[in-house]
Amino acid sequence: MNRHILIMRCRDQAGIVARVTQYFYSIGANLDTMDQHNSGKEGDFFLRAEFSFADDKSAEEVQNGFRPLAKTLSAQYHIYDKAEKLRMGVLVSRNDHVLYDILYRWKTGEWNVEIPWIAGNHEDLRYVADMYGIPFLYVKADKNDRSLAETKILEIAKDTDFLVLARYMQILTADFIGKYGRDIINIHHSFLPSFKGANPYRQAYERGVKVIGATAHFVNEDLDEGPIIEQMVERISHRDLEEDLKHKGKNLEKLAMASAIEAYIERRILRYGTRTIVFSD
Amino acid sequence: MNRHILIMRCRDQAGIVARVTQYFYSIGANLDTMDQHNSGKEGDFFLRAEFSFADDKSAEEVQNGFRPLAKTLSAQYHIYDKAEKLRMGVLVSRNDHVLYDILYRWKTGEWNVEIPWIAGNHEDLRYVADMYGIPFLYVKADKNDRSLAETKILEIAKDTDFLVLARYMQILTADFIGKYGRDIINIHHSFLPSFKGANPYRQAYERGVKVIGATAHFVNEDLDEGPIIEQMVERISHRDLEEDLKHKGKNLEKLAMASAIEAYIERRILRYGTRTIVFSD
Amino acid sequence: MNRHILIMRCRDQAGIVARVTQYFYSIGANLDTMDQHNSGKEGDFFLRAEFSFADDKSAEEVQNGFRPLAKTLSAQYHIYDKAEKLRMGVLVSRNDHVLYDILYRWKTGEWNVEIPWIAGNHEDLRYVADMYGIPFLYVKADKNDRSLAETKILEIAKDTDFLVLARYMQILTADFIGKYGRDIINIHHSFLPSFKGANPYRQAYERGVKVIGATAHFVNEDLDEGPIIEQMVERISHRDLEEDLKHKGKNLEKLAMASAIEAYIERRILRYGTRTIVFSD
Amino acid sequence: MNRHILIMRCRDQAGIVARVTQYFYSIGANLDTMDQHNSGKEGDFFLRAEFSFADDKSAEEVQNGFRPLAKTLSAQYHIYDKAEKLRMGVLVSRNDHVLYDILYRWKTGEWNVEIPWIAGNHEDLRYVADMYGIPFLYVKADKNDRSLAETKILEIAKDTDFLVLARYMQILTADFIGKYGRDIINIHHSFLPSFKGANPYRQAYERGVKVIGATAHFVNEDLDEGPIIEQMVERISHRDLEEDLKHKGKNLEKLAMASAIEAYIERRILRYGTRTIVFSD
Repeated sequence: MNRHILIMRCRDQAGIVARVTQYFYSIGANLDTMDQHNSGKEGDFFLRAEFSFADDKSAEEVQNGFRPLAKTLSAQYHIYDKAEKLRMGVLVSRNDHVLYDILYRWKTGEWNVEIPWIAGNHEDLRYVADMYGIPFLYVKADKNDRSLAETKILEIAKDTDFLVLARYMQILTADFIGKYGRDIINIHHSFLPSFKGANPYRQAYERGVKVIGATAHFVNEDLDEGPIIEQMVERISHRDLEEDLKHKGKNLEKLAMASAIEAYIERRILRYGTRTIVFSD
Repeated sequence: MNRHILIMRCRDQAGIVARVTQYFYSIGANLDTMDQHNSGKEGDFFLRAEFSFADDKSAEEVQNGFRPLAKTLSAQYHIYDKAEKLRMGVLVSRNDHVLYDILYRWKTGEWNVEIPWIAGNHEDLRYVADMYGIPFLYVKADKNDRSLAETKILEIAKDTDFLVLARYMQILTADFIGKYGRDIINIHHSFLPSFKGANPYRQAYERGVKVIGATAHFVNEDLDEGPIIEQMVERISHRDLEEDLKHKGKNLEKLAMASAIEAYIERRILRYGTRTIVFSD
Repeated sequence: MNRHILIMRCRDQAGIVARVTQYFYSIGANLDTMDQHNSGKEGDFFLRAEFSFADDKSAEEVQNGFRPLAKTLSAQYHIYDKAEKLRMGVLVSRNDHVLYDILYRWKTGEWNVEIPWIAGNHEDLRYVADMYGIPFLYVKADKNDRSLAETKILEIAKDTDFLVLARYMQILTADFIGKYGRDIINIHHSFLPSFKGANPYRQAYERGVKVIGATAHFVNEDLDEGPIIEQMVERISHRDLEEDLKHKGKNLEKLAMASAIEAYIERRILRYGTRTIVFSD
Repeated sequence: MNRHILIMRCRDQAGIVARVTQYFYSIGANLDTMDQHNSGKEGDFFLRAEFSFADDKSAEEVQNGFRPLAKTLSAQYHIYDKAEKLRMGVLVSRNDHVLYDILYRWKTGEWNVEIPWIAGNHEDLRYVADMYGIPFLYVKADKNDRSLAETKILEIAKDTDFLVLARYMQILTADFIGKYGRDIINIHHSFLPSFKGANPYRQAYERGVKVIGATAHFVNEDLDEGPIIEQMVERISHRDLEEDLKHKGKNLEKLAMASAIEAYIERRILRYGTRTIVFSD
């Protein structure tokens, strides 16, 4: 059975689900799962469905077949082949924990993803890339002129479907984000919107919070302001000094990032302005 | 707008959602929310939908209108008027926390429910019923002959839609359960299936667990074995003695019971053998 | 046995615990529990101990007896009689959930506290005070001149040990805080420092966070900036609209506030600059 | 500064903490942290302290120096050099996730531990051992005669301080446990005491629980009955089939095992009958 994923968005209106499911029924597709979301007062409607055929229609054929209905609904949509492997570029600096966690999940087949390369603005993690047999590219960072490094990254990122910043400590410029034009997922080591910017664990320690967190989010032009995909939290106490927060936070960062990447790979995330819709797995 | 709730169950088959949503569309109903669940290998399908009409059809009319489709699908179903207020009988013994929590939620209008009476096998909580202006009935427990007490409860329970056991420490007989014939929700003060029966906090303390829990479940003939609706858990440590577990557990019991009752009132729970399907709110 | 609580703070130095415990031993006191905290690089030391005597020394006597040792250590300290009942004034506006929760815990003896009065800038919750037999005082709010209301509150608050703001939606002036001179605990319906000020659930909804929270904190002159005592969090999803956040947040607000008040009553909270030390129960 | 750890256990009695801390003070040791626990009605007392000297006394010297005081208190005790690296043997079968997590924490220096070997009753994970440069020993399992495999493991385990069973699916015999004579930590993929034995995720799915868990515990002669060290839990729903529980449970198993091993390495765990005391980090 050939499995496909439909992602669709339109204005809320009568009969959307009836028409969409009727369409699947009419072409002999089996509806495996379906999730929908109505935004409430804004009047926007979102739908994600997995469906399968006995014959092997390509995603493109199905994409074309759905067009007339989408037009009727004034819907934006895309149909993906579920078996298609996304290509994920990974950017790092010196922190190793998120990278190790990503590579474990890739290596053991937990994720249906390819990692064509890992790039870092330090050489520290080259050995990890080597252990896993993935090309590592050193991209020197220059605070006064980011364009050189970003040009290099854009070059190697051409063949990727999305990028993840696995504790990459450089700020990507609006120019880079625009030119890349695809999704970039970052992990920030705080419970956003608290403690944006540098040293969030120090900020958390100094503010005296009783819970810490980590946030995986899409990168946009405003630092740590992109749509949030996933957040993980853990209780702490006065006994936890800044270094303890860093230590405990590592697990949160790994879990939040892994959850976000998994949702992304499974096409479960829809952007919605400053927010995201993340359908359940 | 008149809002209704459809609960439906049938064997999985092609076109269920298409046909059901098409039906709503055809009668001019607006589909407000819909959740479905496919059990996987067992091949069972469950659906819950909220829909509304501009005109004021009764739940009965809608129930009848849906019959032909249900027959085609060999589906069991029921349609409820969302505005209908369920009548919930409450049984207690001496513990006050779950009762107080239930009454607060009822009193402040958090729940669309009526509480015609509170019955107890002790007089201890009569004062709480009095505070809230609800009739309290003392039902003497007799361990050697439960029939007297149970007959009394059956009598007053005639006009109820379901019962909740808010830390009612008497075991209901199979005879009672059969004769009542409607749903009974119990709160057990452990993370079932661990620590069934008496003194679960003592059992938990003696076993040395690091997390405690509370479980809201449907009552069936096997003690603490009915389908689980909700579970809440909290970390503990070696510092927590049995009395600390009791103290900390109170919050869990209240939250699990409140969550279960809310789901029940909103018709979000479907029984499925030894399990439950609890659709999201 | 007469039980006392020692709270002590000094600069870290050799032999503190040895000298303090030696002192208790020398006067025949039994050390029931002891917790200490070393702040790390700042070099501050905090200690809380519960101890008991067979004879009935007053807290004052013990307080005096401890003085020479405290002087040697240059320590600030206080000794409390554990049986002493604190007097807690409660301020409310229109939201009822935190008030109900506080009154339940007071009424059922969960907390060793007195509630001499409840004051509100609306009449809405007078009926709750009446149910529990506690005097209710209406204190009209005037945005242009807060002094009138605050003078009234100061007057009735004379005989209290601390105040709790149970969703009191008026801002207390620096003048009030200074004149009252004792502790004031507020519950803010967000995960501080995120979403300070008005409408935190709306802010949370608009930012699209995946976890919401509630924060109990000491009130100081900066709005929502006082030392944090307790925070509770819960996962949410895109399905949760602003009103769902409000609904789910109620449980968090109740739990965070109850935990903070309990810690306060048990003398487990020590202020430390912008932070708090909250010893375990 | 040379840092040591004291672990001590005795009957509760007046002046324990005073005498122990006085002793440290008298020998010029700085008390860095101290935790104590009083079991309550059983009358047992437990203490863990970290202390340091300017001069480099060996753990043995300090161990001897403490003897007279321990004798007075009728205390069992041990003093460890905090810098000492424990040697941890790792047993695996086919599941890779716990092994990967352990190796990551070892490799990146998160844990002060040596891993002299990994042994498996399958060859599947040899490649992981190879990636990390650790010897892998294949130990064939024979269900009818466990003695051969266990003799081999005992032989290589001679130089280890403790063993961890990283999803090792063979049952160790009482004979092995007795002969090894040191601690063995297992991870069981359920919230014990629920779902002992085989296929806990299937059991959990069939029972319809709403929360799943993982438990790290000491191994004793009764299967899945040893003292619990750590438990991690996560909410699930009816949407989660058995394979989803397995997938979600992996994170819990890794976190529970990592937390238990970290506590073990830091000498924070004291066995107490069927329970454990795990002092905070």
